[in-house]
Amino acid sequence: MASEFLTSVTVQEALAKIDSIVFEPGQEFAGLDSAGGRILAEDILSAESIPGFARSLVDGYAVVAKDIQGARETSPAFLKMSGEVRIGEPAGAIVREGSCVRVSTGSMVPEGADAIVMQEYVRAMDDEVEVTRPVHKGENIVYAGEDISAGATVMRKGKKIGPFDLGVLAAIGAGRIRVFKRPEIALLSSGDEIVPVDEKPPFGKIRDINRHTVAGLVRSAGSRVEFAGLARDTIEDITEKLSSAAGYDMILISGGSSKGERDHITDSIVKLGGEVIFHGINIKPGKPTIFGRVFDKPIFGLPGHPVSCAMVTVRFVVPLLKRMAGKTPELPVVFAGILTTNVPSSYGIEEYVRVKVSKKEDAYLVEPVFAKSAVISSLSAAHGYIIVPEGVEGLEKDERVEVHPFEENV
Amino acid sequence: MASEFLTSVTVQEALAKIDSIVFEPGQEFAGLDSAGGRILAEDILSAESIPGFARSLVDGYAVVAKDIQGARETSPAFLKMSGEVRIGEPAGAIVREGSCVRVSTGSMVPEGADAIVMQEYVRAMDDEVEVTRPVHKGENIVYAGEDISAGATVMRKGKKIGPFDLGVLAAIGAGRIRVFKRPEIALLSSGDEIVPVDEKPPFGKIRDINRHTVAGLVRSAGSRVEFAGLARDTIEDITEKLSSAAGYDMILISGGSSKGERDHITDSIVKLGGEVIFHGINIKPGKPTIFGRVFDKPIFGLPGHPVSCAMVTVRFVVPLLKRMAGKTPELPVVFAGILTTNVPSSYGIEEYVRVKVSKKEDAYLVEPVFAKSAVISSLSAAHGYIIVPEGVEGLEKDERVEVHPFEENV
Repeated sequence: MASEFLTSVTVQEALAKIDSIVFEPGQEFAGLDSAGGRILAEDILSAESIPGFARSLVDGYAVVAKDIQGARETSPAFLKMSGEVRIGEPAGAIVREGSCVRVSTGSMVPEGADAIVMQEYVRAMDDEVEVTRPVHKGENIVYAGEDISAGATVMRKGKKIGPFDLGVLAAIGAGRIRVFKRPEIALLSSGDEIVPVDEKPPFGKIRDINRHTVAGLVRSAGSRVEFAGLARDTIEDITEKLSSAAGYDMILISGGSSKGERDHITDSIVKLGGEVIFHGINIKPGKPTIFGRVFDKPIFGLPGHPVSCAMVTVRFVVPLLKRMAGKTPELPVVFAGILTTNVPSSYGIEEYVRVKVSKKEDAYLVEPVFAKSAVISSLSAAHGYIIVPEGVEGLEKDERVEVHPFEENV
Repeated sequence: MASEFLTSVTVQEALAKIDSIVFEPGQEFAGLDSAGGRILAEDILSAESIPGFARSLVDGYAVVAKDIQGARETSPAFLKMSGEVRIGEPAGAIVREGSCVRVSTGSMVPEGADAIVMQEYVRAMDDEVEVTRPVHKGENIVYAGEDISAGATVMRKGKKIGPFDLGVLAAIGAGRIRVFKRPEIALLSSGDEIVPVDEKPPFGKIRDINRHTVAGLVRSAGSRVEFAGLARDTIEDITEKLSSAAGYDMILISGGSSKGERDHITDSIVKLGGEVIFHGINIKPGKPTIFGRVFDKPIFGLPGHPVSCAMVTVRFVVPLLKRMAGKTPELPVVFAGILTTNVPSSYGIEEYVRVKVSKKEDAYLVEPVFAKSAVISSLSAAHGYIIVPEGVEGLEKDERVEVHPFEENV
């Protein structure tokens, strides 16, 4: 159709159109046992200082540092023992000049003390100790508020809650926190040649690969996904299946490898009162990608070839899903490595080349997995992909490249 | 206790002891909608060739390549139209010399054809077409078995099933696969100074941070974790809580910052008929780590300081958990980056330094987060850690280092 050529866009244009989608995820509460991996929906402030009191970092003796200045093995300092602070209990004892109090790791530092000397450097006698090393002021103490000060913002809205964040939330007593609801994504397959996985495909047909690849990627990005059906290649059936997915936050429909099928998807979007924003991106693989709006929600028409479908999902759908999940963009984890061979590419197209990575001494070797875009096993074997930008005609052997790892593949 | 010094080990010794643990995880079945992230418990062989028939990669015309050798815009080749193959249907038509058959992307390649010419290079007339470009043999065709050949092993036992693996499993009709059961881990906290997260700690006490950090790390490593209680610092209570965890695949008990507490944990292991394999590793932070066996299961006594506890879990517990989950070790994802400052360290100790990573032009800058080992907020802010090996006394500014990212923190 003419529309395909009219609305074909560059990668930058495609990303700009996708970035213009506005979505405000809902919120819900989560306890710490279920908050891992969720996205924080509020800034977290600490009402308390952490720790709430000065704590000893070692087993030893709380002292006044200047009392033991210059203490050595051959000329120890003598201090009067004036008690003990038991772990988990308030410090009753007080350290005055010339005296010390026994403490354990984690116990409260008694009033008057400004350092802890480790027990290894102390010989304890009846009511006196001999100290054989000096300490500097503050040594082996973590002061009240040194970890987190009262009123401080400890975590920002949009952070994915990792194990260490759970620890921080526990420290400040934030046992129930506000997180974003996971976006709900409807996934459809289309095409007369597609049969479900549990059927043996008759001659001319193939199993529904994209349903499972895309569902896996959507789940990895933190969304929920519901399979909304396998549409025959008619406007009627596609329209009906799309209608059943109207309540979701986004619709993904894979298939439409051939021009006729793609036209049925764009025609169905228009018939339902939606809009095709672009149809075709200057990329390889994945050119015949459709993006639009229907039921006032974003919709992607993903290419039918499994590799094309997967790469378009990784490159264009997953970033939108993460944003819809409320996540602040993170530092991308990339390997820097050395290409083992030339990679030819066409000028004017952004190309995604699947690669395997191996380690040789200090360097990562990056080996392209060349395969046709229908070959799904090439993806399963790849550790990640490299991008050959639009403006170059290929990459050369021994060039340094950045590998984007497939998150769930390494 | 004397035992602490007798059984303190180097990192290599500790890893060797941990590696000697033998564990054979159970197996269960999973469907493709729930298999993502699970570990494959069987080699997967394909009974079929994928694709099962030669498919066209484009919309166009199936031809005999030598019929259109030398075809050009100014001197096109003429071919007789002898039918069409519709997508999803068996190819009825046959291509003989001098003829062609219309095909769509994904449709079956008809008998006799050895290449597909794209429709862009064809002018169709009534019962004849004009071809304006040659094709090479095999062009635009993916042959039967080209993706996966019948009998081939497509995936190995021990692989973590990612989205693309789901696609491969779907392609070959493996809709129900054998995966390893997740290890079941019991997690205990100990210490008289520890209160649950929902309590306001009185003076001298702190909230249970390690429970949540460790649980998050264990879940990220693919295991289930059950909290088995908060033990007071007595041999009786620790022994009782450990006994209640006898049915699990591994026990983790955090706490025991002070020597008295650590002795209670080792004494309890021995009292229950278990064995302390080592007590103390030459690392920083995390030295007072206990490893042993009880109820014939591995047990770790993790340090009480939150950062020490977390780092020991990352460095020593998580690799064992992944192995117990049946996972084949993967290529580690590491950033290579440039240190922004000197990192002092002690000879003879393997030191873990938390770092933040930022990008500056082509390079990653690696900035150490210096903080005491009781300071949990330093971990939450770090992207990963670097290792200062035993045999060096520190690292220098501008040195190239490998950053191990905290998986859930980037």
